[in-house]
Amino acid sequence: MKILVSNDDGYQSPGLIALAGALGQLGEVLVVAPERDRSGASNSLTLEFPLRAKRMANGYIRVDGTPTDCVHLALTGLAESDPDIVVSGINHGPNLGDDVIYSGTVAAATEGRFLGLPSMAVSIAAHEPRHLDTAARVAVELVSRLRESPLESSIILNVNVPDLPYAELAGFKATRLGHRHKAEPVIASQDPRGRAIYWVGPAGPEQDAGPDTDFHAIRNGYVSITPLQVDLTRHSALESLGCWLTSCN
Amino acid sequence: MKILVSNDDGYQSPGLIALAGALGQLGEVLVVAPERDRSGASNSLTLEFPLRAKRMANGYIRVDGTPTDCVHLALTGLAESDPDIVVSGINHGPNLGDDVIYSGTVAAATEGRFLGLPSMAVSIAAHEPRHLDTAARVAVELVSRLRESPLESSIILNVNVPDLPYAELAGFKATRLGHRHKAEPVIASQDPRGRAIYWVGPAGPEQDAGPDTDFHAIRNGYVSITPLQVDLTRHSALESLGCWLTSCN
Amino acid sequence: MKILVSNDDGYQSPGLIALAGALGQLGEVLVVAPERDRSGASNSLTLEFPLRAKRMANGYIRVDGTPTDCVHLALTGLAESDPDIVVSGINHGPNLGDDVIYSGTVAAATEGRFLGLPSMAVSIAAHEPRHLDTAARVAVELVSRLRESPLESSIILNVNVPDLPYAELAGFKATRLGHRHKAEPVIASQDPRGRAIYWVGPAGPEQDAGPDTDFHAIRNGYVSITPLQVDLTRHSALESLGCWLTSCN
Amino acid sequence: MKILVSNDDGYQSPGLIALAGALGQLGEVLVVAPERDRSGASNSLTLEFPLRAKRMANGYIRVDGTPTDCVHLALTGLAESDPDIVVSGINHGPNLGDDVIYSGTVAAATEGRFLGLPSMAVSIAAHEPRHLDTAARVAVELVSRLRESPLESSIILNVNVPDLPYAELAGFKATRLGHRHKAEPVIASQDPRGRAIYWVGPAGPEQDAGPDTDFHAIRNGYVSITPLQVDLTRHSALESLGCWLTSCN
Repeated sequence: MKILVSNDDGYQSPGLIALAGALGQLGEVLVVAPERDRSGASNSLTLEFPLRAKRMANGYIRVDGTPTDCVHLALTGLAESDPDIVVSGINHGPNLGDDVIYSGTVAAATEGRFLGLPSMAVSIAAHEPRHLDTAARVAVELVSRLRESPLESSIILNVNVPDLPYAELAGFKATRLGHRHKAEPVIASQDPRGRAIYWVGPAGPEQDAGPDTDFHAIRNGYVSITPLQVDLTRHSALESLGCWLTSCN
Repeated sequence: MKILVSNDDGYQSPGLIALAGALGQLGEVLVVAPERDRSGASNSLTLEFPLRAKRMANGYIRVDGTPTDCVHLALTGLAESDPDIVVSGINHGPNLGDDVIYSGTVAAATEGRFLGLPSMAVSIAAHEPRHLDTAARVAVELVSRLRESPLESSIILNVNVPDLPYAELAGFKATRLGHRHKAEPVIASQDPRGRAIYWVGPAGPEQDAGPDTDFHAIRNGYVSITPLQVDLTRHSALESLGCWLTSCN
Repeated sequence: MKILVSNDDGYQSPGLIALAGALGQLGEVLVVAPERDRSGASNSLTLEFPLRAKRMANGYIRVDGTPTDCVHLALTGLAESDPDIVVSGINHGPNLGDDVIYSGTVAAATEGRFLGLPSMAVSIAAHEPRHLDTAARVAVELVSRLRESPLESSIILNVNVPDLPYAELAGFKATRLGHRHKAEPVIASQDPRGRAIYWVGPAGPEQDAGPDTDFHAIRNGYVSITPLQVDLTRHSALESLGCWLTSCN
Repeated sequence: MKILVSNDDGYQSPGLIALAGALGQLGEVLVVAPERDRSGASNSLTLEFPLRAKRMANGYIRVDGTPTDCVHLALTGLAESDPDIVVSGINHGPNLGDDVIYSGTVAAATEGRFLGLPSMAVSIAAHEPRHLDTAARVAVELVSRLRESPLESSIILNVNVPDLPYAELAGFKATRLGHRHKAEPVIASQDPRGRAIYWVGPAGPEQDAGPDTDFHAIRNGYVSITPLQVDLTRHSALESLGCWLTSCN
């Protein structure tokens, strides 16, 4: 089994190292990851500039681009043959609810959507995690099970793991993404030269965090596994939109 | 009516200027757009650095960030009151099928999802367009109609307009996103100092471009309007994923 | 006479526009300037990435690089024939004393050192200048006189102009660069997520600002003109260094 | 003795590691270096954005800025007390002649000009060096001698070392900077989307490479040591410029 590993925290992140190390027991692992922290990169792809790839002493390949660039490069040129799956992470900090659209970790997984197996994004629910081994073990178990019993292709599994010892996990839960209120106000400030600057504020509070959501699962000690789709079409709205356009309503 | 306009080609793009000018007939327009071309930025959000906003002579506000940053800043601080709608574009070049996940134009619209009316991303299907006025008129018509007869909230309409005189448009069509094959291989090259560089290759050929897709609509002279969702959960897979996790199958 | 004009504040800077406009009366002007503000860029040169040049509606060419990149590109490829001189500016804000080594305005002039005439960097001593026409007129006078009576080649003239009506200038003065004390301490702060950030602090107070310095000239209403050299060798120290190396002292 | 070490190749460069390791035998070493390769950065200083500093496992502090930013931050805030000297390098590749004005390695040393001892920039004359230990030993010898017998303050020593075993060095030579012809033409090319791009071309051929130059020393197996000055004033031209301004000639 061939596994491509990437992330958005950069090739030196402890989360990446833990993930790549653990997945090594399942097959051949190729790491292609950003040179530096690219959190918040979403699916951004570098079209205006060429990219550079450098093989490091530990065999990792670092790329001076986004998470999407890394996986794109690996799958369309750097890897000698197609891997079976892309696993991205372990992100330091959760990727839950609406925040998922900004996530470089999820974007790296998304870019693996043409492969044979579902892609997977793995995050641990703490910015300074103490139990990366728990998340790494969860990733190994899920990849292992996918190999034996694949899910429908081009699914992306968004996996969030509580920062707990493995034995204290409450279990695994299939969840939907929760939703947040509008983000907190921008933080207006000044630079030391007196000119206005703005910092993007924190995400909004949880608005929809019911029992079937990822928010709820994590809060209760469960590993949250949300199936994501690449197809952004809101199919349920197609008919009403058609009517609207022809003024049938 | 208050309209927030942004884009990903930068605040000097003729497409933006055409759009903002035309929407002025419907209400008050506020333009907040990137300082420079940020095509391919997807939903990336700048968390590590502060942003700067500058009001230009023509009243536009330019921001040294991504399209998402622009709309985020406008909605959480720069605008005095909430606009009714975000309209993004007119992008020079189409945003169709799978490419939508990389689009900064669509991302700017997405960031308006908490507003009262559906957001809209408008693209013209030519990189050096001759009929921006056609796309601008289409945008005015759609916003005007949304005002009278709103669609369900938090929908994003992804509008692609053929580069044709308005009179030659075949009509308006509600479409779903088509799909492409895997992208073309990365283009490996060398810089003048002999070091390896890689350019992201072109998007793959169309794989799924049936009569109900955006690809098909544009190819046949229709304005393509695709309803997009922000919720990435693949709801249809939730049950089977639940089973899979508990090994029921 | 052919004049290449650049700056470090970006191609839209009022100072650049005033300078290019005024120099038009002396000959053919080509403007090649950075896409955005690159103050503080010093002589940095972009070696890792390719550059893009775009001709704007007003004939200016903007480049997505540093001031040095702009002049380098113009002189080694973009300009059809070699200009006679490079004039850089008008910088909004002075470039005096030690600060000159950080200046992109001065760096743009430096990059013109292989041309027939001395290069010139022009700055106005106010960050929000009211008398750009004064500085533009000074530039025209100096270039005009250089054409009639050239100075030694590969000199760079660092010109600073008080922000005053032309009639109120006290005169022109040949000056040396003054010196500052060590810079003020770095300004330590936190981003909204509680992580440490550091802003470069203000330049240090003037330490050596005697009557023959640029600091002194500007403070007394004179146009300060400092001849700069490209050769960084401290020739006066060569002999003692030679001794030191052979332990003769 | 306290020694501040920086470079422009980034905190992971073998040249930096060799230098910091070797200097450890002379005193306390603090490494503050750029997060990534910043070759060609010259004296550029980051004024628009805040900087972040991170202490790595090996005690090095990496900064997401330029070489000048690194030394500036160290001297105005990060270091608990002032070091006695800044040593920058070991740069992979020579810094000779006119190229010195573009060099981030030399710029890092320049930023140490307010300290007690002369600053030093150390480069090895090969892009993929085999004898970093030679250059590191040269650095140790020079710093050690400076401690015993200081040169005039605010001198910067620009040291270039042949890529040879130490025993094969021809000796140490005090040199002046040589000069080059104008740079080679820009390399015009196209990106894969057919748009024009330009690469900065190679430095020009040596024009002035006589026996007293750094070019000549390196070519003949000598360690080249050039004293550099921070003061860019061309003092020898002050009188004639004064005349020229008052039309006395």
